[in-house]
Amino acid sequence: MSDVAINNQEDTRLERLQQALDSGALRQASRMLNALRPGEIAHLLEALPLTEREILWGMVDEELDGEVLVHLTDEVRADLISKMNREELLAASSGLDTDDLADLIQEMPFAITREIIASLDQQNRQRLESVLSFPEDTAGGLMNPDTITVRPEVTLDVVMRYLRRLKEQIPEHTDNLMVVNRDGKYLGVLPLTILVTHDPDDTVAEVMSLDQKPIPASWEDGQVANRFEQHDLISAPVVDDEGILIGRITVDDVVDVIREEGEHQFMGQAGLSEDEDMFAPVLISTQRRAVWLGINLITAFLASWVIGMFEETIEKVVALAVLMPIVASMGGIAGSQTLTLTIRGIALGQLSGSNTRWLVLKELAVGALNSIIWAAVVAVIAGLWFNSSDIAILIAAAITINLIFAALTGAILPLALDKVGIDPALAGSVLLTTVTDIVGFLAFLGLATLYLL
Amino acid sequence: MSDVAINNQEDTRLERLQQALDSGALRQASRMLNALRPGEIAHLLEALPLTEREILWGMVDEELDGEVLVHLTDEVRADLISKMNREELLAASSGLDTDDLADLIQEMPFAITREIIASLDQQNRQRLESVLSFPEDTAGGLMNPDTITVRPEVTLDVVMRYLRRLKEQIPEHTDNLMVVNRDGKYLGVLPLTILVTHDPDDTVAEVMSLDQKPIPASWEDGQVANRFEQHDLISAPVVDDEGILIGRITVDDVVDVIREEGEHQFMGQAGLSEDEDMFAPVLISTQRRAVWLGINLITAFLASWVIGMFEETIEKVVALAVLMPIVASMGGIAGSQTLTLTIRGIALGQLSGSNTRWLVLKELAVGALNSIIWAAVVAVIAGLWFNSSDIAILIAAAITINLIFAALTGAILPLALDKVGIDPALAGSVLLTTVTDIVGFLAFLGLATLYLL
Repeated sequence: MSDVAINNQEDTRLERLQQALDSGALRQASRMLNALRPGEIAHLLEALPLTEREILWGMVDEELDGEVLVHLTDEVRADLISKMNREELLAASSGLDTDDLADLIQEMPFAITREIIASLDQQNRQRLESVLSFPEDTAGGLMNPDTITVRPEVTLDVVMRYLRRLKEQIPEHTDNLMVVNRDGKYLGVLPLTILVTHDPDDTVAEVMSLDQKPIPASWEDGQVANRFEQHDLISAPVVDDEGILIGRITVDDVVDVIREEGEHQFMGQAGLSEDEDMFAPVLISTQRRAVWLGINLITAFLASWVIGMFEETIEKVVALAVLMPIVASMGGIAGSQTLTLTIRGIALGQLSGSNTRWLVLKELAVGALNSIIWAAVVAVIAGLWFNSSDIAILIAAAITINLIFAALTGAILPLALDKVGIDPALAGSVLLTTVTDIVGFLAFLGLATLYLL
Repeated sequence: MSDVAINNQEDTRLERLQQALDSGALRQASRMLNALRPGEIAHLLEALPLTEREILWGMVDEELDGEVLVHLTDEVRADLISKMNREELLAASSGLDTDDLADLIQEMPFAITREIIASLDQQNRQRLESVLSFPEDTAGGLMNPDTITVRPEVTLDVVMRYLRRLKEQIPEHTDNLMVVNRDGKYLGVLPLTILVTHDPDDTVAEVMSLDQKPIPASWEDGQVANRFEQHDLISAPVVDDEGILIGRITVDDVVDVIREEGEHQFMGQAGLSEDEDMFAPVLISTQRRAVWLGINLITAFLASWVIGMFEETIEKVVALAVLMPIVASMGGIAGSQTLTLTIRGIALGQLSGSNTRWLVLKELAVGALNSIIWAAVVAVIAGLWFNSSDIAILIAAAITINLIFAALTGAILPLALDKVGIDPALAGSVLLTTVTDIVGFLAFLGLATLYLL
């Protein structure tokens, strides 16, 4: 059997597992399940409705539990943890890397957390406490304190002998050894590729790389992700305020940060969290969605209230009621484009001071040009439809006003929200459509009241 | 100066560079610029308006040009390439990794591409042609054919001596050596961590890892990203249909895939491309945005046409015109939530066959429950506002109908679009709001016509 055949098989493994589950061949399903990587099992669990998820979770080997939990999104993980008893939680937490353990432990009942910490040897307890002392979304919270350090004055031969003694204890994803001085201060890295290609009699100091600037533990995870992307890193040293090496961040954790950042922007626009469980219980989902619908209902009533001010006008010229959604909708669409572009710019750290003025001016120019084009098109269609040049002129004016407002709001609103600490990915689109609805209705119906009556 | 002080300095480097540019201290700016990593220079270029971007690009050292271009998003890169002359392009393309060269070369004029290929030695030409023979968004297009291979029968000591001879030629991000047989068939990997921790007299076959399944060159980049995430990989072997090793994918390229996937979903909802240059020329941006506004205008006119069918009804009961945007908007918001959740599920490969039925049912239940809650709230407010129980009952019925339709559409539409090969991230939200607008207006105004008149 060729490797590719194996691969194609593997590609369909999940499907076959699903079939085994569906047909009730539980023993076979269990065997197939536990042959998967923890990350794959986690992916599979997330894709299952609640009842099936619980059955499958029960089939996972105990020694895999911890690794699988680490790979799950927050909501699914919290749900599974809440259903585990003390023994299961203790078993799942054993053998995990310190950074993973730190992630898990924060969602466990306090009594069990204490028990787990008590069960660690002094070194591991100190390491865990070091990670837990930083917020989860900082470099300190992301790091793994378990690093291999060497001194600059030793020879590569000594390093090699040291590594041979460590053997299986070498942490995963070790591409660099960390070079520190007597006080634990970070000096540089010794890449394994250098170690294996240089003369064993060379000292670490002679061949080590000084290129890698350490990351302060206080950096936000987004900043860490940008550093990894821009420097093409596999791992990076983390230091405290004194420059003492306290851990190492590896790219697999950064990949999760980047994935979550993207999902946060995408899901946030619809008022959802990136941790949202697709198969959360109906009542929980209903409650969460209700909040978002409620917020949006307020803005919808605001728009209605604006329309309500012009009841008399609409009564006399019903065409206005027919056409008014067009004015609001064009503004909403144009504004969303600018908003989206600006939110991405903020997330990538590419909008600051001097270039925001450029962006606003550019968006204003684009909005103005597009308002001219579409005001003309809509005016012609609406004028012919209702056989009225007055309506044609009115809707053209209203669309022009709304598209220019939309461009301004789309560019300035997220920058302003970001400045006052409100997440533009979450609040931006509701506020934007509130503005474009109100301005759209006000401009169209207001101008109509002034000129038609 | 402590390491942290250096780091904080580094954090403000971009700002200081900006200041140097603003104040016209060009020589100082140039020195600061060329001390940055190519990824950082690319990030900076993307954040600059066109004129400043061109000035800065002119300051970048020639030997950095190629690496910087590789790190840029497609649109900015194409723009800069289009302004480079033959000599500059040849210089920029020299010294690049084969996978990076393959990315660049596809955007250069044909004559120059030919010249570059002709200038390569036979091995590199073959490698380049191998990458170019696969679409850009597949494993084959992502891979770098430049790998270090070893035979299973040699000892670790021999491998070490081989590596020492190679020295600087070891590709970046080499965490594993690839083990292949005499025919070049992929057998397994020899991690550097194993190489440095095991007895030099062991053979590769004795210590190599068989865990890493190779990735077929035909896999889509999204599939590759999922594999990297679920297996926490740094690099992975790529094989052809016969299982022959043809290259290696490294995590830095996968990080870009993941970032772009997230941006594609987020930007797509607003009809923008993830490659969109924030500072593209006004006329180009206007043109692109105009297309999206045009598409949305058609759906807006559709909604207006539905309203137009009920002109007489509105003339008699103007309250309908005041309240109708609420019905449409609630449907749009509820539908977007379901749509967003479903699009994410599809992108993660977590929606297939058996669980889609569950998702649809769940969303339907959530939609139904929320429609009851909000129909009641809106009915009370609208009834009091217009002092009419008829209107209260009507709007409650219309909201219920629209929210249930919205849930169904939000869940089924993206699945259907995906099945017929249309990208739901791009077309989903336009189509959804078309449905929720039309159903909303039709239900509210239609029921009113039947019962009020």
